[in-house]
Amino acid sequence: MTEIKSLIRTIPDFPKKGILFRDITPVLKDPKAFKKVIDAFQRNTPTGIDKVVAIESRGFIFGSALAFNLGVGFVPVRKSGKLPGKTIKVKYDLEYGTDTLEIHDDAIEKGDNVVLVDDLLATGGTALASCKLIEKSGGIVKKILFLVELDNLGGIKKINNYDVFSLIHF
Amino acid sequence: MTEIKSLIRTIPDFPKKGILFRDITPVLKDPKAFKKVIDAFQRNTPTGIDKVVAIESRGFIFGSALAFNLGVGFVPVRKSGKLPGKTIKVKYDLEYGTDTLEIHDDAIEKGDNVVLVDDLLATGGTALASCKLIEKSGGIVKKILFLVELDNLGGIKKINNYDVFSLIHF
Repeated sequence: MTEIKSLIRTIPDFPKKGILFRDITPVLKDPKAFKKVIDAFQRNTPTGIDKVVAIESRGFIFGSALAFNLGVGFVPVRKSGKLPGKTIKVKYDLEYGTDTLEIHDDAIEKGDNVVLVDDLLATGGTALASCKLIEKSGGIVKKILFLVELDNLGGIKKINNYDVFSLIHF
Repeated sequence: MTEIKSLIRTIPDFPKKGILFRDITPVLKDPKAFKKVIDAFQRNTPTGIDKVVAIESRGFIFGSALAFNLGVGFVPVRKSGKLPGKTIKVKYDLEYGTDTLEIHDDAIEKGDNVVLVDDLLATGGTALASCKLIEKSGGIVKKILFLVELDNLGGIKKINNYDVFSLIHF
């Protein structure tokens, strides 16, 4: 996966000073690289999955192609106020203050086996909140898939009760 | 496509009073319906396409699966301040005030044949701004694909210089 890693470009001081932003858009632009990512996600998905849940908004890009290829339903987790139907909500901590993620309350059936997808594991806050949303909905988190994991932020510690696969580490 | 239309649920007064929101998430949750949408998009995509451009954030869901199936690159159009690299920007009018959409300035090659994808055509403001972004990047808008078109808002008039396909009309 060194080829895919080499496509990810690092942009300093985005979105604010001191942050090295890992930009995955060159992977999307390259159809062979994008296919390699989705193939790797598919190989790391357990059998018997009922739903792919993806986190707004870059997670949608990977989650959608994966769900389509697995032939299972796609469910979005979104920031507060974006989903129009009745939702389940979970608050999570930010560096300063809190934020809220939501899932439609009828998106997951009781006992559904779920794969959670996002582009990047940083502090793990949104991933853990998304797991809670899936579990509050009656689903079982069978796997969490990331394209990129930022090792130095230690987000994996927040979600080490789960089976996590990250294709690329920085 | 009456089956897909029947899956789209109408939620009154979202995001504000007086608006009938067409919620497409039940289509995503149903893998057969989702496949029918992507198959219809693929059938309505001209040959020789180089890139799929999709509009944040529900457009990402349909654009990603389409790009993957066509075996071409995926390019996101995002709201202001979300893309980390150097961007091209276009302002467009809202009901009150203006908003800005952006595309990475290296996402499209000169002469690229592009399909633009979004979930819903309402007033046409974001679709027209996205066409301008593609053209400023040197690309050619060969087709615009929507899952839903809201006929009474007349957004099609803003983009009638382009070849537009909407799977479902309300």
